[in-house]
Amino acid sequence: MGRVTIRRRVLRLTDGGREERPDTVVAEEPLELRVGGRPVSVTMRTPGDDFDLVAGFLVTEGIVRAAEHIATLRYCAGAQDDGANTYNVIDAVLAAGTALPELAVTRNFYTTSSCGLCGKASIDAIRTMGRYDVSADPLRLSPRVLAGMPETLRAAQRVFARTGGLHAAGLFTGDGALLALREDVGRHNAVDKVVGWAVRERRLPLRGCVLLVSGRASFELTQKALMAGIPALAAVSAPSSLAVDLAEEAGMSLVGFLRGASMNVYTGAHRVMA
Amino acid sequence: MGRVTIRRRVLRLTDGGREERPDTVVAEEPLELRVGGRPVSVTMRTPGDDFDLVAGFLVTEGIVRAAEHIATLRYCAGAQDDGANTYNVIDAVLAAGTALPELAVTRNFYTTSSCGLCGKASIDAIRTMGRYDVSADPLRLSPRVLAGMPETLRAAQRVFARTGGLHAAGLFTGDGALLALREDVGRHNAVDKVVGWAVRERRLPLRGCVLLVSGRASFELTQKALMAGIPALAAVSAPSSLAVDLAEEAGMSLVGFLRGASMNVYTGAHRVMA
Repeated sequence: MGRVTIRRRVLRLTDGGREERPDTVVAEEPLELRVGGRPVSVTMRTPGDDFDLVAGFLVTEGIVRAAEHIATLRYCAGAQDDGANTYNVIDAVLAAGTALPELAVTRNFYTTSSCGLCGKASIDAIRTMGRYDVSADPLRLSPRVLAGMPETLRAAQRVFARTGGLHAAGLFTGDGALLALREDVGRHNAVDKVVGWAVRERRLPLRGCVLLVSGRASFELTQKALMAGIPALAAVSAPSSLAVDLAEEAGMSLVGFLRGASMNVYTGAHRVMA
Repeated sequence: MGRVTIRRRVLRLTDGGREERPDTVVAEEPLELRVGGRPVSVTMRTPGDDFDLVAGFLVTEGIVRAAEHIATLRYCAGAQDDGANTYNVIDAVLAAGTALPELAVTRNFYTTSSCGLCGKASIDAIRTMGRYDVSADPLRLSPRVLAGMPETLRAAQRVFARTGGLHAAGLFTGDGALLALREDVGRHNAVDKVVGWAVRERRLPLRGCVLLVSGRASFELTQKALMAGIPALAAVSAPSSLAVDLAEEAGMSLVGFLRGASMNVYTGAHRVMA
């Protein structure tokens, strides 16, 4: 349990060199989420911060809206032959009176539009589910502060340096202070872990905050930020078309290719000060 | 339909510069897969090569085993108000006599082990499902040929250069010839598209082939390669622990950090010639 990295023997080849040596790889294990004993999802994740991951997933996927709807989170003790707990199954018990939404909808909530499925329908579905309006968030960002965030994130990443194998998500204040950082083999998981930290700290909605992701900005990451009430999403790499569409529709600021002093502001440019 | 990139206005900030200009972003749209009219999954993908994506998904997720089990693939015409086809819903009709496996199993086939869920159980599940034994594949690889593959892949990527937003998967022969390349916002999709191309060309199992991915090697990508009978998986970036475990168990060669002339061989090093 909780092993974030694993040592392996590896054959290292370089120009002219060939040696066997130990190497560190990032751990990946399945995590099954149950809600009230009922299986809801399995995700491949890096062990650690599992309760954050589950709390974040429950909120960003619209299954519950806040920490008070989650009564308890617990590891489901082992049905293995040796009775050991794998720490890979978590059961979330919802608070009394909190209904579990119809699961087919929560897993893929853009499936409802029958053959009319399109990006627009996906965005409409998020709008219906979303609890927070980020469009009026008064956050203002200086390009200098934005430019400093990736370096802050990298400096704080503990595991990436050893393995090169982890996505990171960081939650920042508008003046560039890092509130929380989480790492995972899956980029959705890294975001869910950061949001879950905030859920458990009862900080939602995350007004005035910036979510920074180490990779690309997809529709699903933008959706997750929106479900947490975050008014600005910044990515080190490229956004997708549907991420841009959703951010624009929601009044969220979306920054991509945040590298050194340069960046592209795709939506919500009024928040980025000249 | 089929729009792989989209033009957007963007505010570009550089050290001292600030200008509005057009930018190209990679398209992302949902794709709903139905099997015999029954919804199976929704994935966010880059439009294009959708039939490859579906054929690959059906095989790598163990829903069918070969092209002859798929009778037809067709876009499900529009239930939109305007009657338009969004080209975002595909219905796969299976061949007569091909049973659809129990879907809860196919979506997450490592969920069956109750509280004993662990990486080992995941690997056992793949072993049960997998059709091909790659362990005896006589493929041999020279480090020089491996080292040349990422550059071949990048040179052939059409969309990445314009958007920076796409994962790529390439299928190579053992002497470094590129058989097929596919790009997608989702790395699983890129692999499914390449495998699906091979499924539709009736080339499975992909004996003697190498699958190269532009990012990391996760458990799920390793699983997909194995389901297609591919004996070697190479990644430009890091593998996860469970990817290494699965590759070792299956007798697949797994190469990571393939950059310039250097690389790490995690498993199946006997295939990499000195």
